[in-house]
Amino acid sequence: MSKKLVLAYSGGLDTSYCAVHLSKDLGYEVHAVSVNTGGFTSEEIKNIESNAYKMGVATYKNLDAVASYYEKVVKYLIYGNVLKNNTYPLSVSAERIIQAIEIVEYAKSINAGFIAHGSTGAGNDQVRFDMIFQTLAPHIEIITPIRDLKLSRQEEIDYLKSNGVDMSWDKAKYSVNKGLWGTSVGGEETLTSEKPLPEHAYPSQLEKQGSEKATLTFKKGQFVALNGQANSPEKNIEALHTLASAYAIGRDIHVGDTIVGIKGRVGFEAAAALITIKAHHLLEKHTLTKWQLQHKEYLSSFYGMHLHEGQYLDPVMRNIEAFLESSQQNVSGDVVVTLKPYHFMLDGITSEHDLMNAKFGSYGEMNKGWTSDEAKGFIKIIGNQNKIYHQVNSES
Amino acid sequence: MSKKLVLAYSGGLDTSYCAVHLSKDLGYEVHAVSVNTGGFTSEEIKNIESNAYKMGVATYKNLDAVASYYEKVVKYLIYGNVLKNNTYPLSVSAERIIQAIEIVEYAKSINAGFIAHGSTGAGNDQVRFDMIFQTLAPHIEIITPIRDLKLSRQEEIDYLKSNGVDMSWDKAKYSVNKGLWGTSVGGEETLTSEKPLPEHAYPSQLEKQGSEKATLTFKKGQFVALNGQANSPEKNIEALHTLASAYAIGRDIHVGDTIVGIKGRVGFEAAAALITIKAHHLLEKHTLTKWQLQHKEYLSSFYGMHLHEGQYLDPVMRNIEAFLESSQQNVSGDVVVTLKPYHFMLDGITSEHDLMNAKFGSYGEMNKGWTSDEAKGFIKIIGNQNKIYHQVNSES
Amino acid sequence: MSKKLVLAYSGGLDTSYCAVHLSKDLGYEVHAVSVNTGGFTSEEIKNIESNAYKMGVATYKNLDAVASYYEKVVKYLIYGNVLKNNTYPLSVSAERIIQAIEIVEYAKSINAGFIAHGSTGAGNDQVRFDMIFQTLAPHIEIITPIRDLKLSRQEEIDYLKSNGVDMSWDKAKYSVNKGLWGTSVGGEETLTSEKPLPEHAYPSQLEKQGSEKATLTFKKGQFVALNGQANSPEKNIEALHTLASAYAIGRDIHVGDTIVGIKGRVGFEAAAALITIKAHHLLEKHTLTKWQLQHKEYLSSFYGMHLHEGQYLDPVMRNIEAFLESSQQNVSGDVVVTLKPYHFMLDGITSEHDLMNAKFGSYGEMNKGWTSDEAKGFIKIIGNQNKIYHQVNSES
Amino acid sequence: MSKKLVLAYSGGLDTSYCAVHLSKDLGYEVHAVSVNTGGFTSEEIKNIESNAYKMGVATYKNLDAVASYYEKVVKYLIYGNVLKNNTYPLSVSAERIIQAIEIVEYAKSINAGFIAHGSTGAGNDQVRFDMIFQTLAPHIEIITPIRDLKLSRQEEIDYLKSNGVDMSWDKAKYSVNKGLWGTSVGGEETLTSEKPLPEHAYPSQLEKQGSEKATLTFKKGQFVALNGQANSPEKNIEALHTLASAYAIGRDIHVGDTIVGIKGRVGFEAAAALITIKAHHLLEKHTLTKWQLQHKEYLSSFYGMHLHEGQYLDPVMRNIEAFLESSQQNVSGDVVVTLKPYHFMLDGITSEHDLMNAKFGSYGEMNKGWTSDEAKGFIKIIGNQNKIYHQVNSES
Repeated sequence: MSKKLVLAYSGGLDTSYCAVHLSKDLGYEVHAVSVNTGGFTSEEIKNIESNAYKMGVATYKNLDAVASYYEKVVKYLIYGNVLKNNTYPLSVSAERIIQAIEIVEYAKSINAGFIAHGSTGAGNDQVRFDMIFQTLAPHIEIITPIRDLKLSRQEEIDYLKSNGVDMSWDKAKYSVNKGLWGTSVGGEETLTSEKPLPEHAYPSQLEKQGSEKATLTFKKGQFVALNGQANSPEKNIEALHTLASAYAIGRDIHVGDTIVGIKGRVGFEAAAALITIKAHHLLEKHTLTKWQLQHKEYLSSFYGMHLHEGQYLDPVMRNIEAFLESSQQNVSGDVVVTLKPYHFMLDGITSEHDLMNAKFGSYGEMNKGWTSDEAKGFIKIIGNQNKIYHQVNSES
Repeated sequence: MSKKLVLAYSGGLDTSYCAVHLSKDLGYEVHAVSVNTGGFTSEEIKNIESNAYKMGVATYKNLDAVASYYEKVVKYLIYGNVLKNNTYPLSVSAERIIQAIEIVEYAKSINAGFIAHGSTGAGNDQVRFDMIFQTLAPHIEIITPIRDLKLSRQEEIDYLKSNGVDMSWDKAKYSVNKGLWGTSVGGEETLTSEKPLPEHAYPSQLEKQGSEKATLTFKKGQFVALNGQANSPEKNIEALHTLASAYAIGRDIHVGDTIVGIKGRVGFEAAAALITIKAHHLLEKHTLTKWQLQHKEYLSSFYGMHLHEGQYLDPVMRNIEAFLESSQQNVSGDVVVTLKPYHFMLDGITSEHDLMNAKFGSYGEMNKGWTSDEAKGFIKIIGNQNKIYHQVNSES
Repeated sequence: MSKKLVLAYSGGLDTSYCAVHLSKDLGYEVHAVSVNTGGFTSEEIKNIESNAYKMGVATYKNLDAVASYYEKVVKYLIYGNVLKNNTYPLSVSAERIIQAIEIVEYAKSINAGFIAHGSTGAGNDQVRFDMIFQTLAPHIEIITPIRDLKLSRQEEIDYLKSNGVDMSWDKAKYSVNKGLWGTSVGGEETLTSEKPLPEHAYPSQLEKQGSEKATLTFKKGQFVALNGQANSPEKNIEALHTLASAYAIGRDIHVGDTIVGIKGRVGFEAAAALITIKAHHLLEKHTLTKWQLQHKEYLSSFYGMHLHEGQYLDPVMRNIEAFLESSQQNVSGDVVVTLKPYHFMLDGITSEHDLMNAKFGSYGEMNKGWTSDEAKGFIKIIGNQNKIYHQVNSES
Repeated sequence: MSKKLVLAYSGGLDTSYCAVHLSKDLGYEVHAVSVNTGGFTSEEIKNIESNAYKMGVATYKNLDAVASYYEKVVKYLIYGNVLKNNTYPLSVSAERIIQAIEIVEYAKSINAGFIAHGSTGAGNDQVRFDMIFQTLAPHIEIITPIRDLKLSRQEEIDYLKSNGVDMSWDKAKYSVNKGLWGTSVGGEETLTSEKPLPEHAYPSQLEKQGSEKATLTFKKGQFVALNGQANSPEKNIEALHTLASAYAIGRDIHVGDTIVGIKGRVGFEAAAALITIKAHHLLEKHTLTKWQLQHKEYLSSFYGMHLHEGQYLDPVMRNIEAFLESSQQNVSGDVVVTLKPYHFMLDGITSEHDLMNAKFGSYGEMNKGWTSDEAKGFIKIIGNQNKIYHQVNSES
């Protein structure tokens, strides 16, 4: 049997260990793959590639998944204004899904019999990877040396050195995961509940003072232009990130429930994600009805939960996406945002579909729309049930 | 029949008109009542009182409702982390409810046959007032001169002058409604969708630079101490407001669905409400289970909707409150917040009930809690349904 | 201005009064329209037509809306297994919607300036009619003589007689509303809470003993064949009704909240609706995932509420329909039902998409799918949060 | 260390094997416990006891848990009208929970270091048992010979015979699990999707013809009397079962999602559960407001899901119970039911808290409550948003 194996490869210590161990010790033909969901520069990719070959891989390939990441996941997170626990744009959870899908499709395309990843047995990523691999390719075996062997950092470094790979593996004080939809930051502080991350732990630092306005243009819910410059949504998100990160906007700490049942805490910086979602949501408040907003909230919250827990392939996700897509019909218009150090404000919107339309009465002003008698009739009848309830139950 | 009437009186032009018109023209015995939900200083109340008598009222009374406001409404808005459309702490909606209840109870206590209020026929407040009056006192008749007569400002001023009340009724550029749970600000900008309120429209102005930490202590969900100083929750909210408003924290604009079906837009400043809710929510993320957080979200969102729409007396509100109360059993601990110009950050929490407890494994580190084989078994089985689904439906 | 008016005409006393009054007294050019949503035989329609002309209408038209009724409403009620309060298939609520839409479209097509209907001011139908008319044709004026004049039956009969219409208007002991999706029955018993309708009040009477099997075939959620006979879904529903009503299946009493806030009670007979929904739901239990079933339940319940309350034109209804449509992808297969006097049983299903597939393990039998150690790992980790919760909170 | 072990013992082949194996081969001091949740007669218990001692157990004890079963679980299933997938009263799921709790409390009371149960690794019960044991007694080790050893029936019988236990272990054609809240029936037919269970597989057979009325009296949601005879709710449920099972009422087949991700199908007979729930629900439709009914539906559906999946100890269950308890304040009154062969009908209710109260207007009759102009005002305003939406979006 062919021992063709696709390795999800990031160039870090764990996946480097995997590359060497799988090819040298276990005799697999290792095809290393990294999936770019917005976190890598082309220089970084070149660097990863040259390192990969030092680890003995047969081939290395970087899959550019930014556009498919937007199309398959990020788009719906925007439609749904999804913020897990009202805080976290699911930056990492969302990436893992698309990385897993890209990897398994690649593995199928080269007829690999094995997929390896470097996740430990402690966290969420193993669940997301395994579930998607098992579901989309039940015939491909999953290999997870890091989870199985539980080596220490030092053991891995020693192993690599003894195999002729003598690189510097300094442990960064903060582990950073960067992507289109935000950057997560973990460190000593996030292992306990009390402390915030220090200023310098965040990848973007305050570079500008004062304030600046930005205009986000949405068309049927999609972010189609920034400051009048039309581009694909993923490019607009990237451009917005560049603009906003100079103000060190979008930092926060997420505390949430991992799939394995323990609480996890992680810092993040997601200026573009937060601004896009808040701007989109404001536009929706102007263009959707009360019940659209209400039912979207229920579905979006569960969409976020299922995505976070690696259930992206549950068909209910497609059903929710159909709802969300349908709800975006009129979510078109401009949203103006003011960027300031560490925070942003939403100025307002303009939209042809704005339901706050002076033609139909301005709130708080007396309306052409109805008379005071009609208002009284409305109130009398809409209050009926509570009136009956209280009379029935105060008498008895 | 006695013509005893209770007038919801604020001292503004509309309710002044009502006071004179109801007593002089219509011959009611007018008992003016203002309800303090945190917006009045004692000086303002004295002023309102002396003016009331100039309008010909029989008696004037200020009802201090801050504590009952907290106990009956604000407490549950905190338990539920209620932010309408993810933004607005319902500052005004919540006040109107408690004002209506206080007024109707006062009217019953003095055997009044009539209640008058100064709301127009255009907005939410008439619905909230009428519904609560009709429900709690179906035998008391509601009188609404402003809604019925639709006079212009000038007509009201002329009428008052002709009745010997010659005061200055300058229209403030911004109409401001202040209370324990926030201050709303309406003005020219909020009548349309495009523009933010100008800096100076907000009641609190930036007075401090740099940053400052504050510690909020919660006990079973209630805000029992600020910076180690124990006090009643409503006092702590007021003290937090003083602290935070020097940083001009808590400004935003709410766009929402009015009860009468049109969209409404209103600026607000609610530093204490926003900080308290966000701090409380963070403590919950550490102390509640995933499903507590999820189901609380559904119920709290509807609690906010029903409250906003004046349905406070629907018995379902008491049922939701029972759920919320029950959920707060372990929501105890300290939350540290950093206040900065225009925004705040949550630093972290300490709690005996923190579920993120190193004893049970730290997220991302390999766990004493389970082996890698157990993790694999978990993933295999939790992925079962999706695997079956995709196999069944790819074959057919 | 033209006085062209479309009258929603049923041939009963109220709409006959309207026809005469509107044409003779008020000088409208009355175009009477009845909308067939499955309740009329062609004989009945002929009869209605000939009577209409006796009332002085300019034209009469019967609009056959059975197919559009299915396509626009009933289809989604099946997709969503919608039973209001777990009981009532919304037979009448659903009809009114489609009748209103047909009428308003007809009125626009003939350039009518007025629409009249015969609903009283007491019930749901006025709300459904008015809301759809106002929304789809804000420029058309709505005329409602019955609501406005509040005449007694006798006054109406006398009026008609004095205008040369001398028909027999015996009040039926039970008011019956028949349509594709069921027949409602109101009478003396349904005005209070205690008593059931007597046997004879129901339109279908028990004609068969023993039992009979019927096979319903669904394709992507649509009822495409009955007992192997392919036909359009609405024809299959009608055929199923004929089959099942011989067993007097599908009787019940619905108690619900009217749009005007009081409780209403109505008997109904809806054999085809209930069997179709229960059969469809069973097929879904076999072919949908747990989360599809769960989220469908939430959305379908609200779909039923909004429809019942006349909010069919809220765009959220289109969004929910998109979800429902998407969820039906694999809801294909046969369902066998046993019909018996007064009730039915679901025998079982066959479907290519059945997730209960022996290949993946039979419930309760030991599985090839996983080992006992894997099961233990699964349980250990899925129980993590509760274990941590109880340990943390028993210690503190 | 003491080898004191509590064995969940039913007297069947599997737990008999466990008893012998654990005491003889592994040297445990086996304390056999059966938990009666309504399924055992005292004769059956005596029989189980005498057999237990033949298996070498140190002690045997039957724990009568009927009252605690009602109080801790069944009560809330009635409050919530819980029917999984709209069909199944969760007869078995609910029992397992209370059995596990009783067993673990007993184990703690006698200081046992081990708990053994006879579940396989294939189904739901292992999850429910293990999760409750692990959570309530993390220090007690769980022993599961049947799951671990995967012996065949014949191997178990041979083993027992070779250990001197020579009983007849005829496999019943249908495996039946009887309890207060219903009886489940599994057999050859339920292993696939097509066929119903045959008539004779159900424990109760049709014994009566004609019909019979029964009156269920509820007080604050609890079933306090049957036909005027006051008794504890669990006794009333049992008496109702006796009454209704003579009509062979309450049979159905449930198809659902097991905790391990595969679909499961099981027949059941639950006359008392179904009648009690439907009667209770009808009383609620008369006494609760629209929003109480709606939000109860959401919470009850999830209550059923969590209970089914063994998450009874999640604190969210206590929160939902608080909501449900609070909602039952006025759910008091009589419900009359007609029992007939194979099915039942709800006749109607009488209640002091009935909101369908003629004093406040009868549905469909013109009301004293409001005028036609008030109705028009109501409709105009409640239709506002949709009107605005359609005008805004047809123009643009």
